[in-house]
Amino acid sequence: MTAVNAITQENIVVGEIANGLPLTIPVYRLKGQGNGPSVYIQANMHGAEVQGNAVIYQLLEQLKQLPLLGDITLVPYANPIGCNQKSGEFTLGRFDPITGTNWNRMYHDHTGLIECFLQAQQNADEQELKAQFKALLIEQTQNLLDGPAYSLTTGKRIALNLQLLAHQADIVLDLHTGPISAKHLYCPLYAKASARYFDIQNVLLIPEGFGGAMDEACFSPWWQLSLALAAQGRTFPVAVEAFTVELGSQEKIDLAEAKRDAASILSYLNYKEAIVAGNYQPATMTRYGCYLKDYLAFYSPMGGMVEYTAPLGEPIPAGTTIAHILRMEQYLSEQPLHSIKIDTPAIPILHFASASVNQGTELYKFFTHYFEL
Amino acid sequence: MTAVNAITQENIVVGEIANGLPLTIPVYRLKGQGNGPSVYIQANMHGAEVQGNAVIYQLLEQLKQLPLLGDITLVPYANPIGCNQKSGEFTLGRFDPITGTNWNRMYHDHTGLIECFLQAQQNADEQELKAQFKALLIEQTQNLLDGPAYSLTTGKRIALNLQLLAHQADIVLDLHTGPISAKHLYCPLYAKASARYFDIQNVLLIPEGFGGAMDEACFSPWWQLSLALAAQGRTFPVAVEAFTVELGSQEKIDLAEAKRDAASILSYLNYKEAIVAGNYQPATMTRYGCYLKDYLAFYSPMGGMVEYTAPLGEPIPAGTTIAHILRMEQYLSEQPLHSIKIDTPAIPILHFASASVNQGTELYKFFTHYFEL
Amino acid sequence: MTAVNAITQENIVVGEIANGLPLTIPVYRLKGQGNGPSVYIQANMHGAEVQGNAVIYQLLEQLKQLPLLGDITLVPYANPIGCNQKSGEFTLGRFDPITGTNWNRMYHDHTGLIECFLQAQQNADEQELKAQFKALLIEQTQNLLDGPAYSLTTGKRIALNLQLLAHQADIVLDLHTGPISAKHLYCPLYAKASARYFDIQNVLLIPEGFGGAMDEACFSPWWQLSLALAAQGRTFPVAVEAFTVELGSQEKIDLAEAKRDAASILSYLNYKEAIVAGNYQPATMTRYGCYLKDYLAFYSPMGGMVEYTAPLGEPIPAGTTIAHILRMEQYLSEQPLHSIKIDTPAIPILHFASASVNQGTELYKFFTHYFEL
Amino acid sequence: MTAVNAITQENIVVGEIANGLPLTIPVYRLKGQGNGPSVYIQANMHGAEVQGNAVIYQLLEQLKQLPLLGDITLVPYANPIGCNQKSGEFTLGRFDPITGTNWNRMYHDHTGLIECFLQAQQNADEQELKAQFKALLIEQTQNLLDGPAYSLTTGKRIALNLQLLAHQADIVLDLHTGPISAKHLYCPLYAKASARYFDIQNVLLIPEGFGGAMDEACFSPWWQLSLALAAQGRTFPVAVEAFTVELGSQEKIDLAEAKRDAASILSYLNYKEAIVAGNYQPATMTRYGCYLKDYLAFYSPMGGMVEYTAPLGEPIPAGTTIAHILRMEQYLSEQPLHSIKIDTPAIPILHFASASVNQGTELYKFFTHYFEL
Repeated sequence: MTAVNAITQENIVVGEIANGLPLTIPVYRLKGQGNGPSVYIQANMHGAEVQGNAVIYQLLEQLKQLPLLGDITLVPYANPIGCNQKSGEFTLGRFDPITGTNWNRMYHDHTGLIECFLQAQQNADEQELKAQFKALLIEQTQNLLDGPAYSLTTGKRIALNLQLLAHQADIVLDLHTGPISAKHLYCPLYAKASARYFDIQNVLLIPEGFGGAMDEACFSPWWQLSLALAAQGRTFPVAVEAFTVELGSQEKIDLAEAKRDAASILSYLNYKEAIVAGNYQPATMTRYGCYLKDYLAFYSPMGGMVEYTAPLGEPIPAGTTIAHILRMEQYLSEQPLHSIKIDTPAIPILHFASASVNQGTELYKFFTHYFEL
Repeated sequence: MTAVNAITQENIVVGEIANGLPLTIPVYRLKGQGNGPSVYIQANMHGAEVQGNAVIYQLLEQLKQLPLLGDITLVPYANPIGCNQKSGEFTLGRFDPITGTNWNRMYHDHTGLIECFLQAQQNADEQELKAQFKALLIEQTQNLLDGPAYSLTTGKRIALNLQLLAHQADIVLDLHTGPISAKHLYCPLYAKASARYFDIQNVLLIPEGFGGAMDEACFSPWWQLSLALAAQGRTFPVAVEAFTVELGSQEKIDLAEAKRDAASILSYLNYKEAIVAGNYQPATMTRYGCYLKDYLAFYSPMGGMVEYTAPLGEPIPAGTTIAHILRMEQYLSEQPLHSIKIDTPAIPILHFASASVNQGTELYKFFTHYFEL
Repeated sequence: MTAVNAITQENIVVGEIANGLPLTIPVYRLKGQGNGPSVYIQANMHGAEVQGNAVIYQLLEQLKQLPLLGDITLVPYANPIGCNQKSGEFTLGRFDPITGTNWNRMYHDHTGLIECFLQAQQNADEQELKAQFKALLIEQTQNLLDGPAYSLTTGKRIALNLQLLAHQADIVLDLHTGPISAKHLYCPLYAKASARYFDIQNVLLIPEGFGGAMDEACFSPWWQLSLALAAQGRTFPVAVEAFTVELGSQEKIDLAEAKRDAASILSYLNYKEAIVAGNYQPATMTRYGCYLKDYLAFYSPMGGMVEYTAPLGEPIPAGTTIAHILRMEQYLSEQPLHSIKIDTPAIPILHFASASVNQGTELYKFFTHYFEL
Repeated sequence: MTAVNAITQENIVVGEIANGLPLTIPVYRLKGQGNGPSVYIQANMHGAEVQGNAVIYQLLEQLKQLPLLGDITLVPYANPIGCNQKSGEFTLGRFDPITGTNWNRMYHDHTGLIECFLQAQQNADEQELKAQFKALLIEQTQNLLDGPAYSLTTGKRIALNLQLLAHQADIVLDLHTGPISAKHLYCPLYAKASARYFDIQNVLLIPEGFGGAMDEACFSPWWQLSLALAAQGRTFPVAVEAFTVELGSQEKIDLAEAKRDAASILSYLNYKEAIVAGNYQPATMTRYGCYLKDYLAFYSPMGGMVEYTAPLGEPIPAGTTIAHILRMEQYLSEQPLHSIKIDTPAIPILHFASASVNQGTELYKFFTHYFEL
């Protein structure tokens, strides 16, 4: 008979809205046996990207009956402002509606801590370094939260509360979606070997550096620490893996697909020995990689009404028509229908959510110079 | 060899924006032989409902080579504010962003003119009545536009400019879409016989009355006139047909589908002898009717993340699960996944565009008590 | 020594948002001696109209130490969606962001109950009629709330919950503000005598009829009942008074002004013998009345940038310049600066909140054909 | 008799909206005698910041009758999307409504050109360096505009078009406003001496560095060039002055105030010998400076309704109450009214535009560690 793991729930307070009510986020925890890496998974930081909540639902349904080696923390509804912000029929949850700041660009960059840390820990061994650095990241995040109340923006306070949870884990998955999108994975270069345990065909390889996102906030300090030690001639493998998992399209709940995505994540966690779940194995598929610098944003060359024609997720040759743009304002004097082509081989990863665009609206994102992983 | 009909374009000015630039709408006209009813077709009054522009494109491509009996006027981009209003990635064009007023509820109700009109035209014959009443509608609409500039709202001015064009026609089609939607037709009861010439399976039958929409603004005065004359013992068939044609889902351009929708409209125009296009015939299909009073808005019984499961456009039996609602806030203490059922046989016509809803958000609209047409 | 009245708080649940959290509204209650009319006061139904919360604060500070004859119920933050809905820096709380429906147009019209009610209560005396009709309004409102969960929109559910509280009172005050506005009072015609107990110079006199607002929802059924009985030859004074109190401008908290507004309300409640507070007496001022039909909405005759020049709240002669409109798009070829005049004597009551307008944006609202009350 | 200078208008196309209509910006030009620095002034890059248009109106009224030494270019309505974007009653024009990107953070950083430029121009004298570098900035901006159409976002295209005009000038003024704000000036450190020719009491001193704003885009390349030459032992004064002039509060047109602001700008232009206007002299006032690093953003320590109490523009001592925050959700169990104090001497420069805030909303911005200029 399968044992059932206990799940506990805590609601953390991450802010307050105008009528004084608290903003809370539910945090679900499963206790592991203590002999595997700990895991942190969150979803729905962007308001319209709801499918991650369904994946967390399916994960909970599975995890409660699987042997757990490390602790697992699951956070749906990571952004209580974003997921409740409608403007018209759609969820306007990609940025703070007051400031325009992308909710996933407000995490804190702790790489500045490394220099002092290494000076203080010159004689520490690998295990000690790891423990001390993890403690430092947690402590510094808490310090920021404990600073003067007037020093934190709404979004930074939410981000730091989540980051505080994430720094406690060895594995971090931030579940997102694109607008209309194929599945893809943001994978730090050093963790490329792990990418093949996810059932995700297209993998974006991320260099060190920090742009404010959750995955970067988690892997950057550890990666930079590793590089700093390498510069001293010491080998220190990056101790944390963090990914942004792009589950497909926003504004969509698909419970069956969520079950498949949960299986893909369980396959990775099994590989990392966070759980014991040998029946979750990665699917056989051709996986493609693309360096971040080759991830092409293709902005609309004109204003108009768009029929998107490129197949998402699959390689297309140079010269493929990716969209028709209809312009009915000058039907008589201009060409009303334009075919937009891409001039390089590419994998279309996502396209804009709306059929009407201004000149300069991001029409597509493409993998270019992609390669088999 | 096929003759090619001349198309002319005029840009009408319907307002001015804050920086003083004019709001203009392109109007395309084809001249008929003068022996058929005149036709007015507009699209995109609601900003996100763009597919009608593609249908007008396909209509123009066909109409320029077909024999035309009546004059035809085609107006894409009927609302230059709505179709350019983004809020996040989607078009926020269902209502005036300043006032919240639905752009398709601002047309003018001319039924108040009937009483005086009939007193003045007691001896007119049917043809004269028709000509005089049409002239009156046009004149009164123009009078409203010529009134004091301070008396018209932004939306009313746009609506009146369009209505001025529409009252000149005998047949009016207002092309719309739902959020996520099956095709359906708003058809005034008296014009039920015409509904079968459109390739649209589901037909909503509208009583007399005025709610502010374009179709109502066009058919109501004529219908009320007919009823008023009937009360005097005179038979006066309603002289104008007006429909709202719901083309499917918003935020989508599909050129092939637009061609099929254009064919469906041409089939109707051929039947009405506005054009000669005998090769455009309605498809054979079971058509369903539903009275407006039985058009059920189904509001979400709870807040949550929604998986829509009802097949749009097809009859479903009572008890069918129409949605799953996921609630991850209380995974441990409450049921996280709810099945929402409908308790009556129905045809799901449309559902909400977003996967996250508040309690009370309109989840679906259903035909209930539907019947074969 | 002044006795201190007990205040109790209840949080009523009026809905649920997308992440499943409840929407709640705080309700404060003070118990009276049972020998005066009961009072219901709410604020902030429109999100940006926050000053009413400050007035309720100041009322609570006073009421806790005044002799109360009737029960008093005070509801700040009446709309938990509206007051937390930002779009940019301002609160976008005038309408449901999904549907565009004005939050103050969703109350229920119970006048349809009157005919049956009177048939059933033919022999009741005035006191019985009042008690029975009040009970009926409460019961029917509760029935609507207890109907199928799928039958209520988000806004209707909020409105009905508030209406349920309001129907229990004999006096209802709905605290609002205009955009940029002078104080004014919406007063039903039959209650004109009460208007002079408020320190509000400008009074809009409202006919019977129902447009969906809270004040109308409360006074219309009673007014119609009174009229129906009058038609039977019975005298039945309208048993409920309900006002919309417009406190000035939105997006502004002014605690000192709120104290003055609280005093004005206490003066009215003292007059109505809901409280004993003889030291609260109305200020001496010239009060002006205007019939609703003469309340002129003045829409901008052109697009442009507006300098508002009319003094709010004070009579101006015909021909007064009420705005300059700057148009820098055609500085060379057109007049860049336009003076907008009003051609009738008027009292400017409010103007648009923004300095940039489209043609047709509501620029001002004016009392015309006003008279001394 | 005063000569009248010719003004010419050109409308530049900076993009296209969804219905295919062009986005245009009016550009006004006055020709100088060729013996003074050229001037570029723009306004209204942020949609709600309209007062700059009125200042340009007043400048044109004066400049057409003043002796001009350098050419002058004036651009009102610099952002045709922003100034026409309403969401509710207010203008939502601070950021691209699709992406959230601040319209004033999209200018291009040309400092990367300096290294190659200096290698190529080793023997050039100061005048030649200036001419060549200016030509290079213009050419490179044009190159970006001439690149593949798919490579530019909507905002970048607008910004580059404006930057192309600005790089042609020796003096650049970008007219902005704050939300509710005192006048203040963003002044690059090297141009501190110029600050006293504006009638602006509070001056923010900006270091080299680039954050994406127009002023930085104009002064940074020249400042970095000067620093690079200084490192080679050559003296090359920064050849361009660029300021962001903050005119006060947004959503407000005040023509009389605009005339005063125009006079202040004319005083500066007279000092720089771009015009001859000796009767425009700076007002005598105490001017305060503050380094950008000491410009304190003060975020709301709690959610609530705010009464702003700090006097804008004037020094306040440590401990001053800057706001009362009202919280009516827990009137009985918590303190409903909070006094927010600042713990350091400061000059309040601006505060949030709305009276309701979340925890973490930017409440105020303060000069701290300010000093007399």
